[in-house]
Amino acid sequence: MSNHVYKMLELTGSSPSGIEDAVSTAIAKASETIRNIHWFEVVETRGHIQDGKVAHWQVTLKVGFTLE
Amino acid sequence: MSNHVYKMLELTGSSPSGIEDAVSTAIAKASETIRNIHWFEVVETRGHIQDGKVAHWQVTLKVGFTLE
Amino acid sequence: MSNHVYKMLELTGSSPSGIEDAVSTAIAKASETIRNIHWFEVVETRGHIQDGKVAHWQVTLKVGFTLE
Amino acid sequence: MSNHVYKMLELTGSSPSGIEDAVSTAIAKASETIRNIHWFEVVETRGHIQDGKVAHWQVTLKVGFTLE
Amino acid sequence: MSNHVYKMLELTGSSPSGIEDAVSTAIAKASETIRNIHWFEVVETRGHIQDGKVAHWQVTLKVGFTLE
Amino acid sequence: MSNHVYKMLELTGSSPSGIEDAVSTAIAKASETIRNIHWFEVVETRGHIQDGKVAHWQVTLKVGFTLE
Amino acid sequence: MSNHVYKMLELTGSSPSGIEDAVSTAIAKASETIRNIHWFEVVETRGHIQDGKVAHWQVTLKVGFTLE
Amino acid sequence: MSNHVYKMLELTGSSPSGIEDAVSTAIAKASETIRNIHWFEVVETRGHIQDGKVAHWQVTLKVGFTLE
Amino acid sequence: MSNHVYKMLELTGSSPSGIEDAVSTAIAKASETIRNIHWFEVVETRGHIQDGKVAHWQVTLKVGFTLE
Amino acid sequence: MSNHVYKMLELTGSSPSGIEDAVSTAIAKASETIRNIHWFEVVETRGHIQDGKVAHWQVTLKVGFTLE
Amino acid sequence: MSNHVYKMLELTGSSPSGIEDAVSTAIAKASETIRNIHWFEVVETRGHIQDGKVAHWQVTLKVGFTLE
Amino acid sequence: MSNHVYKMLELTGSSPSGIEDAVSTAIAKASETIRNIHWFEVVETRGHIQDGKVAHWQVTLKVGFTLE
Repeated sequence: MSNHVYKMLELTGSSPSGIEDAVSTAIAKASETIRNIHWFEVVETRGHIQDGKVAHWQVTLKVGFTLE
Repeated sequence: MSNHVYKMLELTGSSPSGIEDAVSTAIAKASETIRNIHWFEVVETRGHIQDGKVAHWQVTLKVGFTLE
Repeated sequence: MSNHVYKMLELTGSSPSGIEDAVSTAIAKASETIRNIHWFEVVETRGHIQDGKVAHWQVTLKVGFTLE
Repeated sequence: MSNHVYKMLELTGSSPSGIEDAVSTAIAKASETIRNIHWFEVVETRGHIQDGKVAHWQVTLKVGFTLE
Repeated sequence: MSNHVYKMLELTGSSPSGIEDAVSTAIAKASETIRNIHWFEVVETRGHIQDGKVAHWQVTLKVGFTLE
Repeated sequence: MSNHVYKMLELTGSSPSGIEDAVSTAIAKASETIRNIHWFEVVETRGHIQDGKVAHWQVTLKVGFTLE
Repeated sequence: MSNHVYKMLELTGSSPSGIEDAVSTAIAKASETIRNIHWFEVVETRGHIQDGKVAHWQVTLKVGFTLE
Repeated sequence: MSNHVYKMLELTGSSPSGIEDAVSTAIAKASETIRNIHWFEVVETRGHIQDGKVAHWQVTLKVGFTLE
Repeated sequence: MSNHVYKMLELTGSSPSGIEDAVSTAIAKASETIRNIHWFEVVETRGHIQDGKVAHWQVTLKVGFTLE
Repeated sequence: MSNHVYKMLELTGSSPSGIEDAVSTAIAKASETIRNIHWFEVVETRGHIQDGKVAHWQVTLKVGFTLE
Repeated sequence: MSNHVYKMLELTGSSPSGIEDAVSTAIAKASETIRNIHWFEVVETRGHIQDGKVAHWQVTLKVGFTLE
Repeated sequence: MSNHVYKMLELTGSSPSGIEDAVSTAIAKASETIRNIHWFEVVETRGHIQDGKVAHWQVTLKVGFTLE
């Protein structure tokens, strides 16, 4: 881990089922184009409401990956 | 969406089963008396512990709705 | 509750399955040596990623217990 | 000002023209039903974008008024 | 405490004598119209000054009560 | 809006005329290369001063757009 | 004070009479088992309400002491 | 810019017309007695309300200048 | 209040007896050299401990006064 | 500096020797692919520990550069 | 790393020579009694001044270690 | 330390060599005109970059001194 450099991106994943799924959705999407994503941190948890129920969970996270 | 005004309320939902359920409980209760709730944001996640286990999740959220 | 004193500890629980399980893991571990844990508050939610998926959820929480 | 009590509400005003107008829109709406609004504080400034331009400014503010 | 929902209000109490009295003033006023206020949290402590002395303490607090 | 993923960028727009124009400048620049920018949030408002007047307003904002 | 190391604990003191007494209660309790407590910092001021009055003040503080 | 030292002041400018004018008012006043003010940062935006309209914008800012 | 400019100072008052007295001490000292101090805001509450008791309360506050 | 737009990236530099070197490592890496990096701001300072010593300093910073 | 639990302590290290040395002092002291310290995070950097020079750097950090 | 009053100033020191030197530069400059500076706290660490290297470290600190 000597002298590595990491870059962070801020993403928002959306899901009708819950917080964990919204996080997984964002990470899966980012992994399509970025290798070496190592960790994430939840920054904000929000959502949309329809008819008195949560329609979508929206979780904003920072993901970190190695700059090669 | 031209010149609408929204109002935010701060609520705490409680649930023995988990974070998503505590949020849904708060939103369902608020929807009994407020129409047009559109979104929420999680402000704080706490809970009570009994016998080394989570007895209740308590999630504080802001909910926003259109002022008519 | 007259003139009680409480102490807070900061712990990080880890779990491959989700946020609630990571919290429960931390509280169960702390309960092995501390009696009277009454409440917790989530401070931070992070995690490790492997192969484009969440490998471990890491939830940092404060737990509060009565000083006897 | 002796022993008065004030209450704060959190509102979001929306306007296509700018920040000051979004604030004024929220305050005008609140003044329809609340007397004695005395001050406000801007909490958040956001907006929606369409075709590379700001379509609506959305300013969240706290307004304070005397409880009679 | 199963599946209860709480609501928070933000109030500012004012008093010439001190912080505790300003808090009590706000809570007494809110209790005139709201039952079931259970807890409060101090958000901000300010005051006005006249002739080099504190003329009024102004303490902003959140109060929480059960939604029935 | 089911299972969409959004990405946030942090930009600083500069303008001699005011806050709204600095925001618009940043969004117009970002829109040259990014489609689907949907919203922004003001993070910081600063500026440079020359001869006792504001020479440039510098507004830092996060902009969010759909990852396709 | 050369190369000393200090440790901080987070405690909550409770008192029916006021903020200063709640702080003193926490410090007196901690001093039963810890020598060399040198300073404290108030982190949060909360309380419980019964019948429209403050039943207990709860003040959370960090206390710092020399590690010997 | 080698080894310069800057000092920051915190000021609140007031204006009936808007945020930019309140900032300019504060900077113009400070420039009467301080040379070399180079930048500012908005810390807080508040205001007073009369008859359902903003009577005065009050913008708190930090200004920085070179210590000679 | 039209186009006034206010300046804020940050002070720490110290007192063996309590928070209100520490605030009053700081304001009285500042009033020896500054006219027109209008308000204050508590920023931090700390203290020193000797023999398991609070020896001094140290309250940091911002005070605001009119620039003439 | 008229109407320029800047972009910020968040990076973490790692170094066994200290904070300044971790910052320099991150900036040198970013400069391989980005021209016109003008400033940085330290966001977080962390590190890994092995055998009771700091093995690596990890400094997270935002870097800002001109969008051309 | 499956289902591990970590505990955080908050320490302040002091040193006349600089920030890195103050951090190392705190970690070395903690390692005398705690095994498995894995990481730290700098929380606050302060210091004492004598005769216009820094007499001691005081760096507050959180250290995390595995609960066995 | 009975009933002393302290004042805080916010300064930014600049240095090409590092964080500690930027702090020392600011404190040395302030000590030219202020006696009794007792402590400082680092508020922000920034810097300018030229040719992919840190040209100047800019450390903002609060310094506290006794009001006599």
